[in-house]
Amino acid sequence: MSTFRISYELNTDSAKEVAEAIRVEQTIEFPIELAPTWIQNEVVGQVVNLNSLANNRSLLEIDYNVGITGNELPQLLNVLWGNVSMFPDVRVVDIELEQDQLAVFKGPRFGISGLREYFGIKNRPILATALKPMGLSAKEMAQIAVVMVEAGIDLIKDDHSLANQPWALWEDRVKIIASAVNEANEKFGTKSVYAPSVNLPADQIIDSAIRAAQLGSGALMVLPGVSGFDTMRAIADNDEIALPIMSHPSMLGSHFMSKNHGINHEIVLATLMRLAGADISVFPNYGGRFSFSKDECTKIADTCRSQLGEIKTIWPSPGGGMTIERISEIINFFGNDTVFLIGGALHRGNLLENAKSLRNIVDKIEG
Amino acid sequence: MSTFRISYELNTDSAKEVAEAIRVEQTIEFPIELAPTWIQNEVVGQVVNLNSLANNRSLLEIDYNVGITGNELPQLLNVLWGNVSMFPDVRVVDIELEQDQLAVFKGPRFGISGLREYFGIKNRPILATALKPMGLSAKEMAQIAVVMVEAGIDLIKDDHSLANQPWALWEDRVKIIASAVNEANEKFGTKSVYAPSVNLPADQIIDSAIRAAQLGSGALMVLPGVSGFDTMRAIADNDEIALPIMSHPSMLGSHFMSKNHGINHEIVLATLMRLAGADISVFPNYGGRFSFSKDECTKIADTCRSQLGEIKTIWPSPGGGMTIERISEIINFFGNDTVFLIGGALHRGNLLENAKSLRNIVDKIEG
Repeated sequence: MSTFRISYELNTDSAKEVAEAIRVEQTIEFPIELAPTWIQNEVVGQVVNLNSLANNRSLLEIDYNVGITGNELPQLLNVLWGNVSMFPDVRVVDIELEQDQLAVFKGPRFGISGLREYFGIKNRPILATALKPMGLSAKEMAQIAVVMVEAGIDLIKDDHSLANQPWALWEDRVKIIASAVNEANEKFGTKSVYAPSVNLPADQIIDSAIRAAQLGSGALMVLPGVSGFDTMRAIADNDEIALPIMSHPSMLGSHFMSKNHGINHEIVLATLMRLAGADISVFPNYGGRFSFSKDECTKIADTCRSQLGEIKTIWPSPGGGMTIERISEIINFFGNDTVFLIGGALHRGNLLENAKSLRNIVDKIEG
Repeated sequence: MSTFRISYELNTDSAKEVAEAIRVEQTIEFPIELAPTWIQNEVVGQVVNLNSLANNRSLLEIDYNVGITGNELPQLLNVLWGNVSMFPDVRVVDIELEQDQLAVFKGPRFGISGLREYFGIKNRPILATALKPMGLSAKEMAQIAVVMVEAGIDLIKDDHSLANQPWALWEDRVKIIASAVNEANEKFGTKSVYAPSVNLPADQIIDSAIRAAQLGSGALMVLPGVSGFDTMRAIADNDEIALPIMSHPSMLGSHFMSKNHGINHEIVLATLMRLAGADISVFPNYGGRFSFSKDECTKIADTCRSQLGEIKTIWPSPGGGMTIERISEIINFFGNDTVFLIGGALHRGNLLENAKSLRNIVDKIEG
C-alpha cells in the first residue's frame, strides 16, 4: 500500500484526541470501531508521529493511503484541508506526496527553464506589470501596454480584477490589447507578452482561455482561489491553450493568514500552484502593502524551486507595493529566477522612463 | 450609479488607513491620486461609515459601484474577499447586494417550496444521510442505500469525500446506487433520492453531473470550496442537469474559523450558497464534533431563509456528529424547514431500526 504524509501543527491540550479525529475525519467520517478492520487499517489515516513542541503545540504526522485521493486534484485538496478546515487550532505545515502520486500531475507546461526559452531570456529575472486602473477603456489600457512593450517589460498582465466590467468587456479588451502588444513587438523588435485575466464564469473559462490564445495572448492570469485549483489545472493541461500561466492569490489569504489555523503559505502558494499547473506564482512581497514576512517569502520562493517529483520548478513572483527604488534589494533577496511584478508604482512620474529604468537594471544581469 | 455595500469589522489601531487601503485594494489597486477623477469617484469604493466599537474594533461600511463586479459571480467573490483576504484583522460581516445585481443570479432551482414539492413533503423536515465509510464497494454502499430507502430517509447522499477511489469508481458507483435506490423506491412505495458527490475534475464536472442525472440520481452534492462557487452556479443553472443541489462546506472553514479574519459564517454558508445555486446548505451543527456555536448556527439558518431579492430561500442542513437522541432538540432549535443530516450514528446498532425511528419522529410533524 502506497502512502503519502500530511504534517499538522496542533495548538491544543488534547493533541491525542485531535489527532484521532483528524485521521478519521479526513478519510471515512464514520465511527472507526464500526468500520471493517481492513478499512480501519488501510483507508483511515495512520498517526506515525505526535510530538510535543513548545507552547502547548504538537507536531502531528499522518500517513494516508494514496488510494483515498483517487488520483485527482479535487479529492487531494479535500483530504488536505476539507473538513479539517472547520477544526480550530490546526495548521497543515507539510505535505509529502508519493512519487507515483506526483506522476499523475502534469504540472506547469513551461516552468523555469521553459519560460526562459519562451521569453528568450538567459539569466536575468523576468519583468512583469499589470494594466490598471479598472475603469479605463480597452484602448486606454492598450496604450499603456504599448509603452510597457517599448520599455521592454516582458509580461504585461491584466489587473486580476478585470473581468467583464462595462468599461472594458473581456473579449473586446483581450482583442484590442493583444493586437496592440503584438504590433508594438514588431515595431520595437521586442518579445513582450500579454496575459489576460480569465476571471470568468466557470462554464466559459476554458473556452475563453482558448479564445485568448486565438486572439494572440501570450500567457494567462488565473485565480485559483476564485475559480478553483483544478480549473487552473484543466487550463494548464489543455493543448489548445498551451500558454504559460501566472496564478494570483486572490481569496487564498484565508488559508494562511491565521497563525494557528490553515495551511502554510508555501504549500498554498508554491506546492499547490505547481500541482495545479502555474508557471509563475504571484504573492505579496515583504515590506509592501501586505503583511508577508521575509521568512514566508523565502519559503514560498524555495518551494517554487525545490524538487517535487518530475514536476517542473516555477517562478516566484513577488508583487504588491513594489517600487523601482527597492528592485535591486529585492533581486538580491529572491535571485534571478524570479518574476518581478511592479504595477502602480511605475505610474508615478514618466511611465516609459520608469519602465525603461527597470529594464536597465535587469539588463546588467543578463549581460 | 447603482451601488452595493460590504461591511467589515476591523481589529486595528489604524482603522482609517485600513479603510482607505481596502476601498482601493478591492477595486483599482493603483495609487488613487494618479487615477482619473471619475475613477476615484465612481470606480473606487466609497467609505460611508467608519465607527469605533469596543475593544479596538471598528465597523467599516464601503459602497461599491455595481459595475465593478461585471455581473458575474467570480468577480463578485473577488471584490468581496480577493486581495483583502491577505490583510490581517479584517472580517467581512455583511454584504447587501442591490436589487438589479441580485436579479442577475438565478439562484437555487428548487429552494424551500420547490423541494417540498419535489419530495412530496408538506410540513416535516427532510431527512438525509450519507453513504459511508469510504472503502466499501459500490454494491455494499447500494445495500446500505436500500436500507435507508426502506426506512424512509428522503435524501441519501455520497459521503462528500467519495470521488474516484479504486474501491468504488465514480461512474460505476453512481450507476449501481442510483439503480438500487430507484428499484427500492418501487418496491417500498417510497420517494427517496440518491445524491452522488460530484467531487471531480473541473473539466469533467458538468458532464458528470449530466451523466448523474441520466443515470437516475435525484440530487447532487457539490463542494464549492474545492470546485469553486461559480462551478456550483453553472451546475445549478444547467437545464440538462436540473437536479436539487446540496452544498458541502469542505475547505471553506478557512474563511470563517478565525474570529478576527475572514467572512462571517452565514455569508459563506448561506448568502454565497444561495447566489451560487445550492438548494440545501450543509454545515456543522452545534454540539457535534465541530466547533460551531448555537448563535452561528442560528444566523446560518436565518440567512438561508431570509429575503434576498427574488432568490429562493433554501434549506439549512446541520450535520456532523448528529445522533438520534438529539434529533427532537435539534428540530425544535432549527424548525421544520431543515434538512437533518445523520450519517455514522445510524450505524450504531440496527441500521434499519435506527433510520425508521428517525422517520417516525418526523412523521408526527407531517401529520
